[in-house]
Amino acid sequence: MKIGVIMGSKSDLPTMNECVNVLKDFGVEHEIKIVSAHRTPNLMFDYAKEAKKRGLEVIVAGAGGAAHLPGMVASLTDLPVIGVPIESKTLKGIDSLLSIVQMPGGVPVATVAIGGAKNAALLAVKILALKDERLAEKIVEYRKNMERMILDEKI
Amino acid sequence: MKIGVIMGSKSDLPTMNECVNVLKDFGVEHEIKIVSAHRTPNLMFDYAKEAKKRGLEVIVAGAGGAAHLPGMVASLTDLPVIGVPIESKTLKGIDSLLSIVQMPGGVPVATVAIGGAKNAALLAVKILALKDERLAEKIVEYRKNMERMILDEKI
Amino acid sequence: MKIGVIMGSKSDLPTMNECVNVLKDFGVEHEIKIVSAHRTPNLMFDYAKEAKKRGLEVIVAGAGGAAHLPGMVASLTDLPVIGVPIESKTLKGIDSLLSIVQMPGGVPVATVAIGGAKNAALLAVKILALKDERLAEKIVEYRKNMERMILDEKI
Amino acid sequence: MKIGVIMGSKSDLPTMNECVNVLKDFGVEHEIKIVSAHRTPNLMFDYAKEAKKRGLEVIVAGAGGAAHLPGMVASLTDLPVIGVPIESKTLKGIDSLLSIVQMPGGVPVATVAIGGAKNAALLAVKILALKDERLAEKIVEYRKNMERMILDEKI
Amino acid sequence: MKIGVIMGSKSDLPTMNECVNVLKDFGVEHEIKIVSAHRTPNLMFDYAKEAKKRGLEVIVAGAGGAAHLPGMVASLTDLPVIGVPIESKTLKGIDSLLSIVQMPGGVPVATVAIGGAKNAALLAVKILALKDERLAEKIVEYRKNMERMILDEKI
Amino acid sequence: MKIGVIMGSKSDLPTMNECVNVLKDFGVEHEIKIVSAHRTPNLMFDYAKEAKKRGLEVIVAGAGGAAHLPGMVASLTDLPVIGVPIESKTLKGIDSLLSIVQMPGGVPVATVAIGGAKNAALLAVKILALKDERLAEKIVEYRKNMERMILDEKI
Amino acid sequence: MKIGVIMGSKSDLPTMNECVNVLKDFGVEHEIKIVSAHRTPNLMFDYAKEAKKRGLEVIVAGAGGAAHLPGMVASLTDLPVIGVPIESKTLKGIDSLLSIVQMPGGVPVATVAIGGAKNAALLAVKILALKDERLAEKIVEYRKNMERMILDEKI
Amino acid sequence: MKIGVIMGSKSDLPTMNECVNVLKDFGVEHEIKIVSAHRTPNLMFDYAKEAKKRGLEVIVAGAGGAAHLPGMVASLTDLPVIGVPIESKTLKGIDSLLSIVQMPGGVPVATVAIGGAKNAALLAVKILALKDERLAEKIVEYRKNMERMILDEKI
Repeated sequence: MKIGVIMGSKSDLPTMNECVNVLKDFGVEHEIKIVSAHRTPNLMFDYAKEAKKRGLEVIVAGAGGAAHLPGMVASLTDLPVIGVPIESKTLKGIDSLLSIVQMPGGVPVATVAIGGAKNAALLAVKILALKDERLAEKIVEYRKNMERMILDEKI
Repeated sequence: MKIGVIMGSKSDLPTMNECVNVLKDFGVEHEIKIVSAHRTPNLMFDYAKEAKKRGLEVIVAGAGGAAHLPGMVASLTDLPVIGVPIESKTLKGIDSLLSIVQMPGGVPVATVAIGGAKNAALLAVKILALKDERLAEKIVEYRKNMERMILDEKI
Repeated sequence: MKIGVIMGSKSDLPTMNECVNVLKDFGVEHEIKIVSAHRTPNLMFDYAKEAKKRGLEVIVAGAGGAAHLPGMVASLTDLPVIGVPIESKTLKGIDSLLSIVQMPGGVPVATVAIGGAKNAALLAVKILALKDERLAEKIVEYRKNMERMILDEKI
Repeated sequence: MKIGVIMGSKSDLPTMNECVNVLKDFGVEHEIKIVSAHRTPNLMFDYAKEAKKRGLEVIVAGAGGAAHLPGMVASLTDLPVIGVPIESKTLKGIDSLLSIVQMPGGVPVATVAIGGAKNAALLAVKILALKDERLAEKIVEYRKNMERMILDEKI
Repeated sequence: MKIGVIMGSKSDLPTMNECVNVLKDFGVEHEIKIVSAHRTPNLMFDYAKEAKKRGLEVIVAGAGGAAHLPGMVASLTDLPVIGVPIESKTLKGIDSLLSIVQMPGGVPVATVAIGGAKNAALLAVKILALKDERLAEKIVEYRKNMERMILDEKI
Repeated sequence: MKIGVIMGSKSDLPTMNECVNVLKDFGVEHEIKIVSAHRTPNLMFDYAKEAKKRGLEVIVAGAGGAAHLPGMVASLTDLPVIGVPIESKTLKGIDSLLSIVQMPGGVPVATVAIGGAKNAALLAVKILALKDERLAEKIVEYRKNMERMILDEKI
Repeated sequence: MKIGVIMGSKSDLPTMNECVNVLKDFGVEHEIKIVSAHRTPNLMFDYAKEAKKRGLEVIVAGAGGAAHLPGMVASLTDLPVIGVPIESKTLKGIDSLLSIVQMPGGVPVATVAIGGAKNAALLAVKILALKDERLAEKIVEYRKNMERMILDEKI
Repeated sequence: MKIGVIMGSKSDLPTMNECVNVLKDFGVEHEIKIVSAHRTPNLMFDYAKEAKKRGLEVIVAGAGGAAHLPGMVASLTDLPVIGVPIESKTLKGIDSLLSIVQMPGGVPVATVAIGGAKNAALLAVKILALKDERLAEKIVEYRKNMERMILDEKI
């Protein structure tokens, strides 16, 4: 298991599945789990504290509104944590974004766009690729395909 | 000890002292402590979980930026938690406010204004006054004085 | 009657019913009433001033847009007042939130999230539980159930 | 007495004096008073309800933060009410503006710019001028002077 | 003709009709016209400059986005001008509101809520009522009815 | 005279001088003038309508707050108009920006950054350079110098 | 070929077609192309660097979210670049607008409204008209028609 | 050389030095360079494209306003890129933040808080630590010290 994909609520799953799909495409081992900072704080504590020992290397955490999951997990592990602000109902995710990105000095969260679960996966893959030549080659390929798709597009 | 006044950083103290001063004026037992959600997550967990057993009745938590302290404490205790959004350097506390007030269903935080530590104290006192007649009388007096001060003001 | 649930307009009812349902679940006596700060200021004045004498212990007030109801009620009673910012049509409740939470020193309103009527109820229950052992136990149970629901969730 | 100039706090006086100075320049009878919606709600009620009987024709109300004074006064009188959002410390008056301008249907407040006390006075004068030929002439003159000042400006 | 109701685009008509309906209810003479600051600047100039001579007493101007109509008309007439920020497609009217309310000293626009055309009418009626006893009585009645409607509301 | 540089108030001059200085550096004929949409609407009308006949080719207009000058001038001339949002006191120019950039279809204003008077000049020069080979060469040189300055910078 | 119309994604086409349609109406030669700053950076570099040599005179670039296309193209060409902020899913284009308009000194982008592709075309036409008498006449006609349409509108 | 620290302007240096200092404390090889997306686009292209070949493993890019540097570099390299939104003069960095974080799917930027250069360094170190046991131990130590500092703090 390389990547832990966690989210605060089952309603975040449609967004976070975009992350999971990219990890599958790259063939990166991962697990998916509902871990709520507010409703299962003990689970969150244990999950974050055990993550490294369990062999995880990067944690991707999605949360919305007063989104505390990514920052709290980051405070409890030495692993890099990537935060995905989930679009919220009234404020459209600006609350999620600020709750995740505005972390105090000492506890970084690598924040992506509101709803940017796909990019969270790509960032995790880029990080793993630093010590995995096979993944590094896949990223090169991924970028080329992305470019080709645009170049081939007809208007 | 009735009220626990905690804050994420010593730099929040000038703001939170406005809370402490009101508690002193009302003669309410309280304690002050630096408890950082991000830098001392274990302390925070223990503090929140022990609060009720230790006899605390209300927790006032101040934090700025991606302010997770009030919400996390609220997720770990059955006591009412009052959140004080501390003014942040760049975004002036709008990040603090949204990080504290936009809590998901199930875990309430009683949020006051940005920098509203004084009102956090008054809210705590109003809560305690529900079962403390002496405090209830002091609140009546407080409101009267506030009114009189305005009425006596000369322009 | 323990809790007064008031709102500025009948259109706030779908939101505020989430508050009422939680109070029912906890078996807390309550009343529901339309009290508009702007359209029935006299009713609001009387309601707020009589609340304590009538035995109310907490007032939950929902309002949207230039939302003055929670703050005005708070200025007229010694009881704790919880404000629920109702989502507004154009600005999605950011106007409601700021109108309720940014109260001046001296008159606190315990503000919850935009549309956070459920949490307003829970906050009220937490406050009452400080002197009601039975309620306190129910809250412990409530948090456990909330946790269990997440833990049992299958992805 | 034609115009009542009221404000929520003595700290609003430097801003509101720009209103008073314009009224003096136009020779319009007026009174200045601290009337706080939150700290002196009874005074506010009485002031608003008596205003018309006392001969006032327009009320100018300045307030900051969760600024309820203009809207509450408007709900208690049939006179036109002009609201001046006072610049607030952290949010620079965007809270004051939204609290004043976003009034529900049925209770209008004529809102001017953040800190726009001068324009509040001019608006009041324009309203009175509808039935005061002398004032109407002064306004014509005022606009001409304003134009001339710009035209004469040297760069 | 007492009130001129103008708007920047025919698409503003559904909103502005709420203004017209109130004026009809109060029996106030009025006219409705499309006058665009940007697409018919000459018409706007003439309309604003002739308004007083033609007997108008108040101008209500609705506009959206970079909403210049209310402010420009206010700069060209001595009459009181009421601005209605029309909800815009992307920014929901916050652009309209700021474009209308943030006028510089010297040229006031009495701004109402985003989409607040109904209140614009009521404000105009309140202004006219200062010299029309019959209208003043109708306003008293209007407020009473509004209050009664709420009081009679069943939940 | 090629470029007309106008602004709503003399207080805009420190900002707009950055525009003037660039025009001087490029040796482009220009004029500077205070033209206020709100305080000198007649002057603005005449200026905008005569601009093309007088030989101007581009108009740069700076304004703050409810900033109507650029849009109004654009509605009255066939020349390209560049708008400079001036930083405002309370809202820091976000009001100026939205008032200038959110123009309705049919009347474009080429908007630059808040306080971006220097870029307004460069944009004007780029436009003139389309038919002035000498200017085109100067722009090439300008970009090279800008690049060289960064490359030569020591840390 | 006079005008290059580029956009970051095929999903921007419905918006950018409003630009293309205006260019067709004015009979201005143009090309349309998907050029993504992020997914085809090499294409973007080449496109921007070759634009002038290929005879283009103005580039219109539309992009959404973290919208870098207009600014990057502007940094690589001496031609005037017009930026169109595309409405984004969560933040409604305020991110696109700020990413495009807030350019640093030295590299101007002529920014239009969120979704303002039509005005981008008109701005481009106004620029070309400075040296094309036929186009200049068409603009005069365009403005007259726009005015007439409003004047003929029946309510 | 492991980490490339780049920034758009020398004025970003005081902020970015907080990044450099952390890297020094952890003994991580790094380089600092001014690389402007807008003023030195060719240098940026070369820098980003050569980064991996030159042995860099993570790039930290700071930029303000319409901040394109992090996103453009991310589009040109397979390495993980960390973006630091620099506080801007008027909008306090909300423009920088949105320009950096709201990247489209396919090109991630790991964004930290406005002015969060220190956390950018820590994030880079956490990434490198995944394959450097010595760094991993230093991070453990760092977190312990951070915790101890709070615990030892006297109020």
